[in-house]
Amino acid sequence: MSEQLRPGATIGILGGGQLGRMLAVAAARLGLHVHVFDPDPACPARDVARAATHAGYDDADSLKAFAAAVDVVTYEFENIPTETLDLIEAARPIRPSREALRVSQDRLTEKTWLEELGLTCAPFAAVDDAEGLARAVERIGTPAILKTRRFGYDGKGQARIATPGEAGAAWEAIGGAPAVLEGHVDFLREISVIGARGLDGKVACFDPGENHHEGGILKTTRIPAEISHALATDAVLLAGRILTALDYVGVLGVELFVTETGLVVNEIAPRVHNSGHWTQNGTMIDQFEQHIRAVAGWPLGDGRRHCDIVMENLIGDEVETALALAADPAVALHLYGKAESRPGRKMGHVNRRID
Amino acid sequence: MSEQLRPGATIGILGGGQLGRMLAVAAARLGLHVHVFDPDPACPARDVARAATHAGYDDADSLKAFAAAVDVVTYEFENIPTETLDLIEAARPIRPSREALRVSQDRLTEKTWLEELGLTCAPFAAVDDAEGLARAVERIGTPAILKTRRFGYDGKGQARIATPGEAGAAWEAIGGAPAVLEGHVDFLREISVIGARGLDGKVACFDPGENHHEGGILKTTRIPAEISHALATDAVLLAGRILTALDYVGVLGVELFVTETGLVVNEIAPRVHNSGHWTQNGTMIDQFEQHIRAVAGWPLGDGRRHCDIVMENLIGDEVETALALAADPAVALHLYGKAESRPGRKMGHVNRRID
Repeated sequence: MSEQLRPGATIGILGGGQLGRMLAVAAARLGLHVHVFDPDPACPARDVARAATHAGYDDADSLKAFAAAVDVVTYEFENIPTETLDLIEAARPIRPSREALRVSQDRLTEKTWLEELGLTCAPFAAVDDAEGLARAVERIGTPAILKTRRFGYDGKGQARIATPGEAGAAWEAIGGAPAVLEGHVDFLREISVIGARGLDGKVACFDPGENHHEGGILKTTRIPAEISHALATDAVLLAGRILTALDYVGVLGVELFVTETGLVVNEIAPRVHNSGHWTQNGTMIDQFEQHIRAVAGWPLGDGRRHCDIVMENLIGDEVETALALAADPAVALHLYGKAESRPGRKMGHVNRRID
Repeated sequence: MSEQLRPGATIGILGGGQLGRMLAVAAARLGLHVHVFDPDPACPARDVARAATHAGYDDADSLKAFAAAVDVVTYEFENIPTETLDLIEAARPIRPSREALRVSQDRLTEKTWLEELGLTCAPFAAVDDAEGLARAVERIGTPAILKTRRFGYDGKGQARIATPGEAGAAWEAIGGAPAVLEGHVDFLREISVIGARGLDGKVACFDPGENHHEGGILKTTRIPAEISHALATDAVLLAGRILTALDYVGVLGVELFVTETGLVVNEIAPRVHNSGHWTQNGTMIDQFEQHIRAVAGWPLGDGRRHCDIVMENLIGDEVETALALAADPAVALHLYGKAESRPGRKMGHVNRRID
């Protein structure tokens, strides 16, 4: 198989949530077929995918059949079991590569890797047990955040430690799993860079956006971030270094803290990213198409921004306001087709143009 | 049923070609489900629709089941048999309405209706037989074009008559079907307006584009058309009059000739239109979403243009250039997922931003 897919080829997507759904639409736009793998027959991506397999990520037969049915495999989430990846990689290329997953699946590995690259992270210490946590709190100080090394997202698997006395409760709150203690970062803003790297090694980044979280979940991203041109350039170059060091293929999200002394890397996500949803209405080629182009071995497209935008997530029953929001002519609405809204569940988002 | 659909409601689309495909994607973006009706199991819209029925447009049982499975029905082509529409309308609303189809399905009805509205068409005469054609040629003069009253598209069902002596051959060429003879219009440009009207009666039009045809098939649309602001305003107002007179709901394409003496209506199409594909990369809300919003009873969105664009169709084996075209950073590629390219078949299009 040539590394460059032809129109009519099939991209397999592990995970059929809203990110998989928007990736599937981008692939269809380019004349590529999509086969989604997701345990849930009602997953959002199912509606817009040509084919789907609904089975567990530990179902070897289903995974082998899925791999055989597609030309390349990508994913919408980083917490994919190693065994799943082994089964697929035996048959088909996985893009972005295993290395990107290895680094980003484990917070300790990720922070160590980022520091070895010469980038700055929050002070951190590995925590394997309660005694280790006490030592880490002594070293890092408080306030701090205890985070499980694996399987965290949207604030899950995290506990704040305001004073050393709260360490025991935090350890219980995260279920006593292997963890990392992160020191407090006194940041001015949180920004993110959505970067892409093609199979040919070319890098393209979207303008940095400024993020605001509520309850550990991204609430809004504003483009452009209110930072200097110089800092925006630094942020983009930093993302480019990460992409190149990983020999990355696809779209990657880099969350950064802006501090008085420079940029601090919060975390990286080897996939399209919630803080890049604004690109759907602010650029010619959005993050989803950029990812599909990269994974297909196609040239990256033009991600220049043509307007200012605030992206706002619709979480839980906020989705009830969707129709009213759509009446605002500055608003583009994106809903994920989820039948049931639950607290904290991402149901959709709006991109609001700022004139 | 409320006239305004809720997210999660289902839109039925008659016809699963590329227009149906792009409508399906727009509906999914808004959290609406899509059920496509098309005889061809390999139709382009199938890949991105939640459900599909593959049966003939004369299959009453399948049509009734389709209507029962959806909340509202729209269509991607105007040549839908009357019996099909009767069966569906007995169960579900059809948007745009029967009146729009009645007017636009028959060239004679359409031209008569447009003139009664006070608009200017090319000189025309009804032709029912060879003798009638001779009388029409005498009255209208040559050069002229003989067009079947029904079922014409992309230059099919048309024959040019350069001199009166060619009338017999033209009559044979169109198969002796009921026809209209159109007099020659000496036009400076051909433009089109893509207009939309909501269930609430509000009208929104995209900027007029300038069209160039090759072999009777649209080849390019350039936005903006090279016309004065005053003329662009006239064209938009004219489209608005048509939309309102038809009590229209959805997107409508109006093809116009620009002549020394003003605007002449060529034809109207009660659907999203090839000359509106540029909106996918030149506006916040494109023609497909605008149509879905209207059909769903939702407010229309903002169709303001944010850049200049040339849309170019990829016809037949021109699709082979798709990957090379995608390497141009000014180009957004849209392919329809058709397995087989044939001469004259629309395989995709590109929107090229002009800086």
